[in-house]
Amino acid sequence: MKVAVLGAGNGGQAISAYLSMQGHNVSLWDRNQNIVDELIKKGGVRLEGCINGFGAINIITNNLKTAICDAQIIMIVTTANAHGYLAVQLADLLQEGQIVVLNPGRTGGVLEFRESLKKLNFSKKIFLAETQTLIYACRTKETGVVNIIGIKDKVFLSALPSKDTSYVLKKIQNLYTCFIAANNVLVTGLENIGAVFHPSVIIFNAAAIERGNKFYFYREMTSAVAEFIEKLDDERLAIGKAYGIDLISAKQWVSFAYKNIKGDSLCERMQNNPAYYDILAPESIHCRQLLEDIPTGIMPLIAFGEIAGVKTQLLQSVLTIASVLLQKDFTLEGRNLTRLGLNSCRSVLDVIKIIDNS
Amino acid sequence: MKVAVLGAGNGGQAISAYLSMQGHNVSLWDRNQNIVDELIKKGGVRLEGCINGFGAINIITNNLKTAICDAQIIMIVTTANAHGYLAVQLADLLQEGQIVVLNPGRTGGVLEFRESLKKLNFSKKIFLAETQTLIYACRTKETGVVNIIGIKDKVFLSALPSKDTSYVLKKIQNLYTCFIAANNVLVTGLENIGAVFHPSVIIFNAAAIERGNKFYFYREMTSAVAEFIEKLDDERLAIGKAYGIDLISAKQWVSFAYKNIKGDSLCERMQNNPAYYDILAPESIHCRQLLEDIPTGIMPLIAFGEIAGVKTQLLQSVLTIASVLLQKDFTLEGRNLTRLGLNSCRSVLDVIKIIDNS
Repeated sequence: MKVAVLGAGNGGQAISAYLSMQGHNVSLWDRNQNIVDELIKKGGVRLEGCINGFGAINIITNNLKTAICDAQIIMIVTTANAHGYLAVQLADLLQEGQIVVLNPGRTGGVLEFRESLKKLNFSKKIFLAETQTLIYACRTKETGVVNIIGIKDKVFLSALPSKDTSYVLKKIQNLYTCFIAANNVLVTGLENIGAVFHPSVIIFNAAAIERGNKFYFYREMTSAVAEFIEKLDDERLAIGKAYGIDLISAKQWVSFAYKNIKGDSLCERMQNNPAYYDILAPESIHCRQLLEDIPTGIMPLIAFGEIAGVKTQLLQSVLTIASVLLQKDFTLEGRNLTRLGLNSCRSVLDVIKIIDNS
Repeated sequence: MKVAVLGAGNGGQAISAYLSMQGHNVSLWDRNQNIVDELIKKGGVRLEGCINGFGAINIITNNLKTAICDAQIIMIVTTANAHGYLAVQLADLLQEGQIVVLNPGRTGGVLEFRESLKKLNFSKKIFLAETQTLIYACRTKETGVVNIIGIKDKVFLSALPSKDTSYVLKKIQNLYTCFIAANNVLVTGLENIGAVFHPSVIIFNAAAIERGNKFYFYREMTSAVAEFIEKLDDERLAIGKAYGIDLISAKQWVSFAYKNIKGDSLCERMQNNPAYYDILAPESIHCRQLLEDIPTGIMPLIAFGEIAGVKTQLLQSVLTIASVLLQKDFTLEGRNLTRLGLNSCRSVLDVIKIIDNS
């Protein structure tokens, strides 16, 4: 199968290597010429850890057109705050019938992607989908060498509109068998566990990170922070409930996504998850755990809460604190109702109508 | 002069020792029998650092009546969240003409104190005042031995109502010369620098504190946290402005309260202040920097902002985050408009009328 993988970070390198090893015809794109050059020199990516082997990648390029030309499936594996930008860049290049999958969409990824296309009067028939999380827990050791720390058992996937999900799922089964259908993009979007995990950990460790302290992001989780995360998660669960979705709680999720995790509390499960074990905290507070998760997690959660009339005091406090800490106005880029294309929605039913059918 | 000092923490021990060394007739009260017993055994308190010597304290007791009987001035040096409780305990014991000084009142200390008395139909004529900050930066090395790290040059003091300030100031000059008159209790209350310093530092260090990391509270201040504090301080300054008060900013304050502090930024001034140098962070997030400063600093600042129509989004976010982090409902005890006796106030002028005259 011809597959384009956009983004050569941890996830993009891992996916393109694995699919190449499986015999697929993969083209890998990245915006960064240095990474592209380095990968061309190596001819592909070596995987270590849970998967071992070398994936020789057919095309490695920083030209989007070259990358996606005639690809049946386009796997977007960039940070989620690049989704809107990529939609604009891809608008002229996308071909009828192509499948675009955001790995993952975070909250509202395909909604923002589609709205960005709409603004450009995009009219080709393509298929848009998003996953709930990245398939792998992985880290690049160096460009071209990725350590696969864990592989998720089951990953939710939904198309926009939802009626396209079964078609996308049938096609993507050729690449991965871990994907399972989510009812709609609210499920994949509201099951954004990173949005409740990441910013909380960074905020309560901000000074330690600034001081240059090294610590393990999950292994050294502390109880009050984990309990804070559960309270933040309660707001996410309440939003889900308002949309008729019985979301998986953060605590359940760790055991759902990984096998045989020991521990009763969320804190223990985070500390004990082997897939999390070696993940170090970022070296700067200007990290994707805030720069990505605030605009593509916390903000759209607040937006969905607003339509449904769900109180999101804690989510809003996290947004406020993070904005001031980073001195960054996230409203200039974050997924609000306008950027999600939901400005006309006055109720939960309005949203569901849009995501299921149109 | 007969002086009662209530509270035998760092500040209470330091004040009672110093005043005893100056020849005053001091009685020191604490609620904790063990501390009282230990101090009785030692006969007083030894001061080290900026002041050296032993203060033999006349009466050391855990009986409030014994402590305050015939005292001309009652210096309350407990944490501010004990002010309401102490007012209730003292109501029957206070004598006509006695001067009660909260060291410091934090935000709205005397307002809460007076309102607590009012609820008990208290009718004796006493004088109520509060200071803006504690005279000393000090730490107890052990019960009965206090290290005086710094002595403040000037400390604001105001009575409630303001017309009593000059009388209180004249009397208290017999004890200390550092006190200077503030226009009213809004000045002493809104100049609550601890309220903007303390909770911010704890929140951004919460996980480090939970992990048992030792660090110096001010000396290891980090730039993003210090800049966050300045943004939080901007809301405090805006509240001051709404009440016609030109408050001292956090950055100016460090240089105002201590001599010859080097540094352009707040961060540098905190790092370089010798009086702050040895102050370690607390060993638990359940520390007075949250348990005291949220209900007696952040909350009354929000309350004063509410009356004046000043936006306090960041203060409210700090309250929300701290409440959830500690799993503590601060609304059950914190200084809101009711507990400050300001429920009937609809405007800034209503507040000023109350604090200046009645």
